[in-house]
Amino acid sequence: MRHILIIGAGKSTGVLVDYLLNKSEEEKLQLTIADKEIAPALRLCDGRPNAKAITLDVFNKADRVEQLKKADIVISMLPARFHIEVARDCVSLGKNLVTASYVSPEMQELDTQVKEKQLVFMNEIGVDPGVDHMSAMQIIDRIREDGGKVILFESFTGGLVAPENDDNLWNYKFTWNPRNVVTAGQGGAAKFIQEGKFKYIPYHRLFRRTEFLDVEGYGRFEALANRDSLKYMEVYGLENVLTLYRGTMRRVGFSKAWNMFVQLGMTDDTYQMDDSEHMSYREFVNSFLPYSPTDSVELKMRLELRIDQDDIMWNKLLELDLFNDEKKIGIKNATPAQALQKILEDKWTLEPGEKDMIVMYHKFGYDVNGEKKQIDSTMVCLGDGDKQTAMAKTVGLPVGMAALRILNGEIKTYGVQIPIMKEVYQPILEELETYGIRFRESETKYLGYNALHR
Amino acid sequence: MRHILIIGAGKSTGVLVDYLLNKSEEEKLQLTIADKEIAPALRLCDGRPNAKAITLDVFNKADRVEQLKKADIVISMLPARFHIEVARDCVSLGKNLVTASYVSPEMQELDTQVKEKQLVFMNEIGVDPGVDHMSAMQIIDRIREDGGKVILFESFTGGLVAPENDDNLWNYKFTWNPRNVVTAGQGGAAKFIQEGKFKYIPYHRLFRRTEFLDVEGYGRFEALANRDSLKYMEVYGLENVLTLYRGTMRRVGFSKAWNMFVQLGMTDDTYQMDDSEHMSYREFVNSFLPYSPTDSVELKMRLELRIDQDDIMWNKLLELDLFNDEKKIGIKNATPAQALQKILEDKWTLEPGEKDMIVMYHKFGYDVNGEKKQIDSTMVCLGDGDKQTAMAKTVGLPVGMAALRILNGEIKTYGVQIPIMKEVYQPILEELETYGIRFRESETKYLGYNALHR
Repeated sequence: MRHILIIGAGKSTGVLVDYLLNKSEEEKLQLTIADKEIAPALRLCDGRPNAKAITLDVFNKADRVEQLKKADIVISMLPARFHIEVARDCVSLGKNLVTASYVSPEMQELDTQVKEKQLVFMNEIGVDPGVDHMSAMQIIDRIREDGGKVILFESFTGGLVAPENDDNLWNYKFTWNPRNVVTAGQGGAAKFIQEGKFKYIPYHRLFRRTEFLDVEGYGRFEALANRDSLKYMEVYGLENVLTLYRGTMRRVGFSKAWNMFVQLGMTDDTYQMDDSEHMSYREFVNSFLPYSPTDSVELKMRLELRIDQDDIMWNKLLELDLFNDEKKIGIKNATPAQALQKILEDKWTLEPGEKDMIVMYHKFGYDVNGEKKQIDSTMVCLGDGDKQTAMAKTVGLPVGMAALRILNGEIKTYGVQIPIMKEVYQPILEELETYGIRFRESETKYLGYNALHR
Repeated sequence: MRHILIIGAGKSTGVLVDYLLNKSEEEKLQLTIADKEIAPALRLCDGRPNAKAITLDVFNKADRVEQLKKADIVISMLPARFHIEVARDCVSLGKNLVTASYVSPEMQELDTQVKEKQLVFMNEIGVDPGVDHMSAMQIIDRIREDGGKVILFESFTGGLVAPENDDNLWNYKFTWNPRNVVTAGQGGAAKFIQEGKFKYIPYHRLFRRTEFLDVEGYGRFEALANRDSLKYMEVYGLENVLTLYRGTMRRVGFSKAWNMFVQLGMTDDTYQMDDSEHMSYREFVNSFLPYSPTDSVELKMRLELRIDQDDIMWNKLLELDLFNDEKKIGIKNATPAQALQKILEDKWTLEPGEKDMIVMYHKFGYDVNGEKKQIDSTMVCLGDGDKQTAMAKTVGLPVGMAALRILNGEIKTYGVQIPIMKEVYQPILEELETYGIRFRESETKYLGYNALHR
């Protein structure tokens, strides 16, 4: 038997464990699921053979090393900031490692040692980052193999509610960490390049500079820029690309409405509000509006945001019960972002049985034999219930597939890696298709940003 | 003779030196003006008796201590971040210290030692902070002595161009550090309290939430909120005040126009732009606008900012030559804020002979014997030429006056101080009047924010 140690029994771990347990007989796998609490780990094992639950405090060096020693490969499903100690021990003990998180500078520093020890540390192998890397590099490599030169690359991902449960005016529910949604886009201007021109968008304009994307069978979406698209020049080897733009997908209209919160300053996460615990939703709203001895919060809000009487924006605010003067924020020393999250969670929480959806959209413009062409590639993954969410599937499955292939010696390029090599993406994308995670491609002449009809 | 060591021969030091030299015979003062360069220090001495110029590297501990030892009192006119080493030596050597800068946490930490050594470290004794503290506390103390309770305090200061040289559409020229003007308001939401309601304004709304202030003989100004007004509750002992609001004064219309830069992201100082050195003004503007293969930068700008054909906002942009495609930013690795500063300095630099102006406006609302009243107090100081600028006078004079009074034992409260005590503000405000720095008061019934006619 080969021993796989999985640390962290979080939201995506269930799909990962199921995937590996389903292969455990044929592949001779023995799983150990470690968490700081035994309950979630036990729940994942579900009494099945070849799976064992243990408690593990990852900050306890001795316990951590003891467990790592027994493993043939380690999968860290911990929050990103906790990987590094595990990774350092994996170097010392000579264990391969898989994570779904971005490579941190500390992780990157281990690269030389990881290579010397002939180990594979595969990171960024969830959905975004992960499936996006693999599906993009597959087409980029194919274009190059066919003698083409990539001139445009755009890539968008969205975690959304499935159409069947898409029943609020925002066309949005929280399907992952709400905090990341509330603070999305903060921390610096968005940077990208369009037709050779560098472009910068400050946070407070981000939600007004969207573009539309149509996905066959699913209608129209909008995309807003991620923070730094430019770093993908180096990652994907696209140094001479004219357009490079990465972003987040939402249903059309979400960003215009979300911009109301941004404009008022409700998404600020840098300071604590006075007496947030006893503050009503209405008082929360009022604290971002000018003082008036006579005018209502509603009127001030309409004026501040220029919302007409019959504007759907107003209904979106009402749907959130934003002007309620009895409901309390109920959080001590809350930042505006934390208070807003509380208000949104009342309405945007996925109910049991409701399904989520992951949407991905890549555009590739390229020049081949003097001709300019474009490939659009889209993927939609729907959740199948509370545990098999689209998010859990698109994160957990590629992690499991990568771990198994490293264990079997099929992924063998040493070092701190991300899944941009053919030996990684080719077999994993193929296997993901058998789980319904499939990209559809369409080819056209190059549309880019210069076509007159756009 | 008493020895005064002045470190830093900057913009305000000239007025300070003149003030002290004019008193040097009667007060028996010997000045040493130390700067890292000899030239500016020599220029300030101007061959006059009782003044000596020396070079001093303040980072050289031995040299620093040698000079401090000879002094009876030390005035640091260095940039704020350089005071602390001088201050620590002053504690060790038992020397009094005067600065015009905000008390840093490190400076505050010295308080106990300064008291033990029976020393006075007077800080925040320029114009803002400085004259604002003194003139506000004088009226606050008077209200209290008359049995009144302060319910409202608002305070505004502006460094502007004098009316006679106010000849551009922005009604603004740089009269001090341009960098501080370009980045003003950044680094967190503005916080204040109005009629008992806490209010928060995010940076990108700051310039659209102004209020008007009329100053007799000078017309109308506008005020925008400073970052944190709330800390003045403690500083001025106004814990139960209903309204506390501090801000910056500009001529009416400045903020609405400045907001165009804020909206586009041109004031961002957190990242460097690609190839800023060779970027034209026009390219700078275009990098904040959506890409278009056909539309002009001008048209995109009008659409993005919703500027009508006949809107004066447009003329304000044209006046800055913002769409010029030949003028270059010419600064390597410039942030947007640095690039914008370059463009503005072309047009907003005070020419030789042009005069600046300092405007200050305080409002005090109070409750006395069941009656609500209001005092408005205003001060306008005009520059008298290139060296006697309003800014240099309102900073240099109070610094000199405080230093002399500490030397003479008239200011004798030990510790790390700011000028909020009567023994400090009363004589200094009186003496400032003889230099034309004078507050005019008017009394009305309480207007506050609740009066219907506002």
